[in-house]
Amino acid sequence: MLTDPTNLRIPGPTPIPPQVMEAMQQPAVPHRGEMFANMFTELQEQLKRIHGTQHDVYVIAGTGSAGWEASIVNTLSPGDKVLALVNGNFGERYVTVAEHFGMNVVRVDAEWGNAIHADDVRKALDEHPDVRGVLLTHNETSTGVLNPVQEIGAVVREHGSLLFVDAVSGLAGAPLEMDAWNCDIVFSGSQKAFMCPPGLSIIAVGERVWEHTERASIPRFVMDFKRFRESLAQGSTPSTAPLSLIFGLKAACDMLESEGLDKVFQRHVDQGVYMRGELDKLGMKPIAEQGFESPTVTVAQTPEGVTSGQLIAELRDRHGIHIASGQGHMKDSVVRIGHMGWTDYPELERTLKAIDDVLEHIPAARVAAV
Amino acid sequence: MLTDPTNLRIPGPTPIPPQVMEAMQQPAVPHRGEMFANMFTELQEQLKRIHGTQHDVYVIAGTGSAGWEASIVNTLSPGDKVLALVNGNFGERYVTVAEHFGMNVVRVDAEWGNAIHADDVRKALDEHPDVRGVLLTHNETSTGVLNPVQEIGAVVREHGSLLFVDAVSGLAGAPLEMDAWNCDIVFSGSQKAFMCPPGLSIIAVGERVWEHTERASIPRFVMDFKRFRESLAQGSTPSTAPLSLIFGLKAACDMLESEGLDKVFQRHVDQGVYMRGELDKLGMKPIAEQGFESPTVTVAQTPEGVTSGQLIAELRDRHGIHIASGQGHMKDSVVRIGHMGWTDYPELERTLKAIDDVLEHIPAARVAAV
Repeated sequence: MLTDPTNLRIPGPTPIPPQVMEAMQQPAVPHRGEMFANMFTELQEQLKRIHGTQHDVYVIAGTGSAGWEASIVNTLSPGDKVLALVNGNFGERYVTVAEHFGMNVVRVDAEWGNAIHADDVRKALDEHPDVRGVLLTHNETSTGVLNPVQEIGAVVREHGSLLFVDAVSGLAGAPLEMDAWNCDIVFSGSQKAFMCPPGLSIIAVGERVWEHTERASIPRFVMDFKRFRESLAQGSTPSTAPLSLIFGLKAACDMLESEGLDKVFQRHVDQGVYMRGELDKLGMKPIAEQGFESPTVTVAQTPEGVTSGQLIAELRDRHGIHIASGQGHMKDSVVRIGHMGWTDYPELERTLKAIDDVLEHIPAARVAAV
Repeated sequence: MLTDPTNLRIPGPTPIPPQVMEAMQQPAVPHRGEMFANMFTELQEQLKRIHGTQHDVYVIAGTGSAGWEASIVNTLSPGDKVLALVNGNFGERYVTVAEHFGMNVVRVDAEWGNAIHADDVRKALDEHPDVRGVLLTHNETSTGVLNPVQEIGAVVREHGSLLFVDAVSGLAGAPLEMDAWNCDIVFSGSQKAFMCPPGLSIIAVGERVWEHTERASIPRFVMDFKRFRESLAQGSTPSTAPLSLIFGLKAACDMLESEGLDKVFQRHVDQGVYMRGELDKLGMKPIAEQGFESPTVTVAQTPEGVTSGQLIAELRDRHGIHIASGQGHMKDSVVRIGHMGWTDYPELERTLKAIDDVLEHIPAARVAAV
């Protein structure tokens, strides 16, 4: 795989491969025309395979936040009880959105760095039989933890509640079998493992959702699933389709399927193993619970005496490589390095070498390491 | 100006100039980084000039529909009375969205093809002193009519209600002086006279809006103006910015300002005059009320004995030129031809020649013309 010259190593937006760039050059076409409908229908089949679903996958002009909002407003009503599974900042933000729309939020918290475990979910659902929706983050980008969606899905299905999965930074980089794993809504964005620019929200909607949409009382228009379902039947979108981004997404799905999804997932797993091992050697301990490490983003402690801000600034200024700081209470103590989408070992090696070099030049880091 | 090879002549999405295509090739950058913030701050100043406003202009991943929704949910509450000014299908759709969010809609209707006149607005506001928001379409794409925003703005200001302007197919192609004309919210999309692909909703928010946002009770998150205001102060967007489209929009604004806005507007006016005159000669009478003709889209009756469907299909199949049918009750009896954004006489001449050729080959058209 070729080397990305920009080596943008934040956990999204990710670098764009030339195939996607080229596809976005396609001149504008009528968004209600046959050419678009044919392409969009083919894309739909690809997205179904990538999600492991037989059901609709909607493509919306939006970002990950649109997924948080759409999953709630299409299915729930103010005062409804939801169970939020929180083990990082993105889980926390899902709570914020749910509260914003008046949900009665019950939480299962796991320490940041740990996974959410199905037993804790079962316990919470037993205590709260009236939970209508469970909010889960597939891949917690703030800590580099991949939550066990399959196990949690089985528990939620038993209980009969809906399961909404924020898969923004995981989908297309880690397996997610929506139907087999009992997920009801799975949403992501174009700008992570899908290797496209930001601007598309991708939302898969399972069959059980529709019984809930009639009752759901929060007013909605742009994000109304019913409008998307009606348009999809015509091979289109309710509003003007974001053409160039959709052409890009089509090219990205072609790339994913041509490499083979299993190989794509294995590549991500291998890169995660590599990054965690190498960072550990540099004195930067990955924080993810063993067995639940994210294949798309590594979050590691900064060496003693070094803040994430120092490390990030030096990497950017000396090497032109961008990595991200921690979030919430981990802001200064960890860095986050993305290896999702269009990434291979040359970029990761370059990043690791640069980190090594930077640590050489931060006096505190060497003192601490001695 | 160079000839667009695709000659997409629907009233949006429009062809994309090479400068915009190229700008969209910019590799991804950190969306919270300095480079993006600098570019976005410069874009903000350009957008303010193009809107004729001193106030914030938000750039959202979305389409024109997002503008309809955002203008209402940020300012009004269910049961509020709004005055909808309707003289075509887009005005009608604004009503649909308003009703969707529980507004008490009072209408001023003008016959399709006619403009909304300020006197009728004044009469309606006198009859309904409790109107809180007025919904106006700047450029009615279904009929090719440019509404007199300035005159209506003066009347609405006198009354004290808010004025929301759907400028999707007009902005950057026709003057709109937001502050001077007393508009409170002006929204558009990237895919019309802005010469970019669809996917960005551009929303300018005047000062008077903020007194209303606190009271507005419709829950909102993704489209919450307050989140955009806070992020804009940091040179960013609340969710991940749609980078490639924003790079494209920046290039488009550069083009508009380098040509000069007055020249851009005059070019559109001249092309409108030309199209209406030439179509009339071909037996296709433009339907817009005199003095209120749109500079960005011409809507003309099909020749007697010819449906819009026939004309559109023949143009597409024989010449590869795409124009649009009418909407609503005018579906079959008019065609709509866009001349907004990256368009010049060669494309329009080619379109007119092709129409002439097609009419030659539709027997009914010739019979009727004899």
